[in-house]
Amino acid sequence: MTYRAPVRDLAFCLTAVAGIDDLAATGAFPDYDGDVLGAVLEAAGQFSEGVLAPLNRPGDLAGATYANGAVTAAPGFADAYRQFAEGGWTGLAAPAHAGGQALPKALELAAYETVHSANMAFGLCPMLSLAAIEAIEEHGTEHQKTAYLPRMVSGEWTGAMCLTEPQAGSDLGALTATATPNGDGTYALTGQKIYITWGDHDATDNIVHMVLARLPDAPPGPKGISLFLANKRIVHQDGSLGDRNSFRPVGIEHKLGIHASPTCVMSYEGATAELVGRPHEGLAHMFTMMNAARVGVGVEGVGIAERAYQHALAYALDRRQGRSVWTGEAGAPIFDHPEVRRTLAVMKARIEAARAICLSTGVAADMARHADTDEARTHWKRREDILTPIAKAWSTDMGVDVASQGVQIHGGMGFVEETGAAQFYRDARIAPIYEGTNGIQAMDLVGRKLSQDGGASARAIIAEMTATLKDMGGLYAGKPLERFAAGIEAVQDATLWLLDAKADAGRQADVLAAADAYLKLMGDVIGGWMLAKGALAAKAKLAAGDGEPAWLEGKIALYEIYAANVLGHCSSRLAAVGQGGALLQRMTKEALGAA
Amino acid sequence: MTYRAPVRDLAFCLTAVAGIDDLAATGAFPDYDGDVLGAVLEAAGQFSEGVLAPLNRPGDLAGATYANGAVTAAPGFADAYRQFAEGGWTGLAAPAHAGGQALPKALELAAYETVHSANMAFGLCPMLSLAAIEAIEEHGTEHQKTAYLPRMVSGEWTGAMCLTEPQAGSDLGALTATATPNGDGTYALTGQKIYITWGDHDATDNIVHMVLARLPDAPPGPKGISLFLANKRIVHQDGSLGDRNSFRPVGIEHKLGIHASPTCVMSYEGATAELVGRPHEGLAHMFTMMNAARVGVGVEGVGIAERAYQHALAYALDRRQGRSVWTGEAGAPIFDHPEVRRTLAVMKARIEAARAICLSTGVAADMARHADTDEARTHWKRREDILTPIAKAWSTDMGVDVASQGVQIHGGMGFVEETGAAQFYRDARIAPIYEGTNGIQAMDLVGRKLSQDGGASARAIIAEMTATLKDMGGLYAGKPLERFAAGIEAVQDATLWLLDAKADAGRQADVLAAADAYLKLMGDVIGGWMLAKGALAAKAKLAAGDGEPAWLEGKIALYEIYAANVLGHCSSRLAAVGQGGALLQRMTKEALGAA
Repeated sequence: MTYRAPVRDLAFCLTAVAGIDDLAATGAFPDYDGDVLGAVLEAAGQFSEGVLAPLNRPGDLAGATYANGAVTAAPGFADAYRQFAEGGWTGLAAPAHAGGQALPKALELAAYETVHSANMAFGLCPMLSLAAIEAIEEHGTEHQKTAYLPRMVSGEWTGAMCLTEPQAGSDLGALTATATPNGDGTYALTGQKIYITWGDHDATDNIVHMVLARLPDAPPGPKGISLFLANKRIVHQDGSLGDRNSFRPVGIEHKLGIHASPTCVMSYEGATAELVGRPHEGLAHMFTMMNAARVGVGVEGVGIAERAYQHALAYALDRRQGRSVWTGEAGAPIFDHPEVRRTLAVMKARIEAARAICLSTGVAADMARHADTDEARTHWKRREDILTPIAKAWSTDMGVDVASQGVQIHGGMGFVEETGAAQFYRDARIAPIYEGTNGIQAMDLVGRKLSQDGGASARAIIAEMTATLKDMGGLYAGKPLERFAAGIEAVQDATLWLLDAKADAGRQADVLAAADAYLKLMGDVIGGWMLAKGALAAKAKLAAGDGEPAWLEGKIALYEIYAANVLGHCSSRLAAVGQGGALLQRMTKEALGAA
Repeated sequence: MTYRAPVRDLAFCLTAVAGIDDLAATGAFPDYDGDVLGAVLEAAGQFSEGVLAPLNRPGDLAGATYANGAVTAAPGFADAYRQFAEGGWTGLAAPAHAGGQALPKALELAAYETVHSANMAFGLCPMLSLAAIEAIEEHGTEHQKTAYLPRMVSGEWTGAMCLTEPQAGSDLGALTATATPNGDGTYALTGQKIYITWGDHDATDNIVHMVLARLPDAPPGPKGISLFLANKRIVHQDGSLGDRNSFRPVGIEHKLGIHASPTCVMSYEGATAELVGRPHEGLAHMFTMMNAARVGVGVEGVGIAERAYQHALAYALDRRQGRSVWTGEAGAPIFDHPEVRRTLAVMKARIEAARAICLSTGVAADMARHADTDEARTHWKRREDILTPIAKAWSTDMGVDVASQGVQIHGGMGFVEETGAAQFYRDARIAPIYEGTNGIQAMDLVGRKLSQDGGASARAIIAEMTATLKDMGGLYAGKPLERFAAGIEAVQDATLWLLDAKADAGRQADVLAAADAYLKLMGDVIGGWMLAKGALAAKAKLAAGDGEPAWLEGKIALYEIYAANVLGHCSSRLAAVGQGGALLQRMTKEALGAA
């Protein structure tokens, strides 16, 4: 079973659910229209299917390798990266002044979903480059933008994000790398960084490292961290590359999955670096691009789930065991066993829900930059802010679950590595961890995003969901409607409960104890909303005779599948939202049986 | 972090929750009392901690190896197996006439939990032997019992269960291996079997293969399958071992996990075999021991979850990041982050719930054999029957979830193989698949177990849960009680709905569409019942000053954690129970986007 890019589903999601066409009205994307959307998705899908997917299993087996202070990409990856860059895939949404195509980020996210599906280990390389590009674009000097951006946007160079240290993971305020002025405007960077994705490789001549470190006069903690840029090879004034800079990988991790993505331990030994942005504001600078990176990881969750789903669906249609309860056929495909079909349908429904959440977040991000008025930009920025932790955490948890169900549908074959399902299960597991663990996402949602506007953006979503619910009356009746209504009510109750608890400084533990359940509740219900919007659009297309009827009918049934199998979770989420910190405090380490 | 056997929790579960002491009253276990229970668990724990746990990671790295038609166990495993046998661990619950210790199976299950925690790949070898022993004990001739059982019970030989063929997995009726009479009472066995756990190894001189195959006059399908016994080496009349029999492994699988457990492809080429039991009744014979094997796999799920939990708890107490919301400490253990503590507490609650379900199933199995009256034996047999698919599926799904959460708590470290958390995530994934996939368990529950007595055993459980709910009034108030009450009501509603649907032959697809949700609902609510029983026992022990107060208080809080985080699921399960087959039928392969 090879990967088939779901181009039709992606285009449907962008246009009928996420509202990408609203972007055209801003005038900010003169080169964008429906034809461009179709052409980009089609071409991305072909590249992912034809070039990246065939390298996925070999890359898992061989992995990236480390020897003598240098990393070699897995066989075929360096060449695939060069084709990827030549195809223009590293600059889809980058600004035109840097050589980019200035297309919507939402479209780039959709195109990258196919990359992650085809080869998640590969996709990390351009994904991290995009984050470095954004950091320079937002905070770099004119010189930095001129000297580095075009060669990163073209894919001639890649970028790496260098934040984590052994003692500083979720708590970046604890980092200790230092940067000392050299007196000539440059800095000498010293320290060790871990978990540096594609921190070294042989696919390009240079790698631009964005590194967090402390200046000599820095205050302790998170407010004393600055952002630096260090090239793997010294870049001369004329743009030519000189000697190796004084940093190198000292090893790569032996990991559960994404074996072809080198995860480097990097050692900086007085490396020549430039300051990016303002001193001591490095953490804030990083956070401005966190949203983009996080929704990108959410899309990874969607991508790996889609791949696992396709693999399982193909197996279920091929593997024959037992008698069909529907056709009576003996030796029927296991697809005809209700439990198998149900599992596949729920996988598909959750994937489409997560995809729509991520791409809606992408549209919100584009609108936040390009909408016509300040008021509209603020509205969309808030929407991007509140959706981002949900897009990241809900989609990546879904990715792990769906990959696990993909293994299950294969039965014993799923546990055998040759089948391929096991790799998706291993690869998927990183996405809930990096770019802020999903626990951090939940804390971000209840701690900052929910209340930064007094709950206005949550209320706006509730109002829009309620409007959609009204529209659904012509399409559904009874339980499918009741369950969405109950979900919206649960979101409303939980939101009020949280805003109330947050108003009381003594209830911080209550808020944090609710975080995970609130994020999951939001994801479950917003996901249902997304599928409902898709179903309404499908109904309109059916009436207009626009699109394959069986596929459009599927969108309508998919919401019902989701309503029966997922939306019902809202009451359990509500119970967990209100559990309170005091109960957790009773779970002492003695109560928990610590040694 | 090394493994510490939870001896205190196991003893508490057996005595205070699962009711093992009722067994003593039957008089069938003259050698069993509370002291024996403590001594067995203590010694099992020491063996698992000291001998088996240290081999777990090396076994994962080296794996079992195959060369030239023979399997070599991972380094140290053969020696560990010999120590295991010498310690008497292969015969804990075996009958005295075969050299066993004739202790309750429930106690054996508890002891084996520590084996699976310490080294799941190792534990499979004795686990499969136990199944083979049971097959011979139940269906063998006197000669077979005399010739083989003592040497299997002593651990001198191991047993292997040989059922699956490439085209016959869940649907064993499709198997094609043949057995032709040799004219001297023996048979010539020919065919290929796959997924044969510990089908070959170098830890013992002989391996007793229990093989399903067809006699020449066999009718097609499941009613033409017989059970055969084939020794790896010919056993002479005097008990001495002769030449190799005509079967051999032709390869082992490269798997996601349990690398040290060889999963063999076996080829039988006219192998000398004996019939076990009646011709054409092999499948029925296998099913009589299915219950035991399935609850054993459930215990594997508990074991791997306990190990992952301990690993994560130790890390959470050690790893310092950020400020404690409770103590205000900077650089506090991540255990003091509410989301981390909540995750650990829910892991622990689900583990204890699953352990109690499995051990209660074990007690039911013992009572089904040894209770005083026919009526009582029937009652307990029905209880064993209905609990078995729940014990298997709910516990192994839990095992995968908890192992995944264990990775998550480690953050980036969890994705690095050296840490160990990743191995548990890989190993855990097989348990929902083998010994009947969890989908098969759900079909067994709704298709056979629920209705075989017209729903009487389900009603008996509902009545007992209701009685426990009444007793809880002195311990809990409000939500924790309401949630259990709602759960019981959901079980009742779902049970009635299913019995009703089953009465209508045209609604078979509705029943099967409900299967997974019904099993999960039963597991969620019965799990809560188990924790409630534990909490009530802990309250009594606290009042009597019997046991460490912090640990006993933990049992009381654990039920509340479970009520807030798991019991609330009942409404979502109920929604899925009623989804119906027609909705699934609308999810055609076109709707699902099949290529």
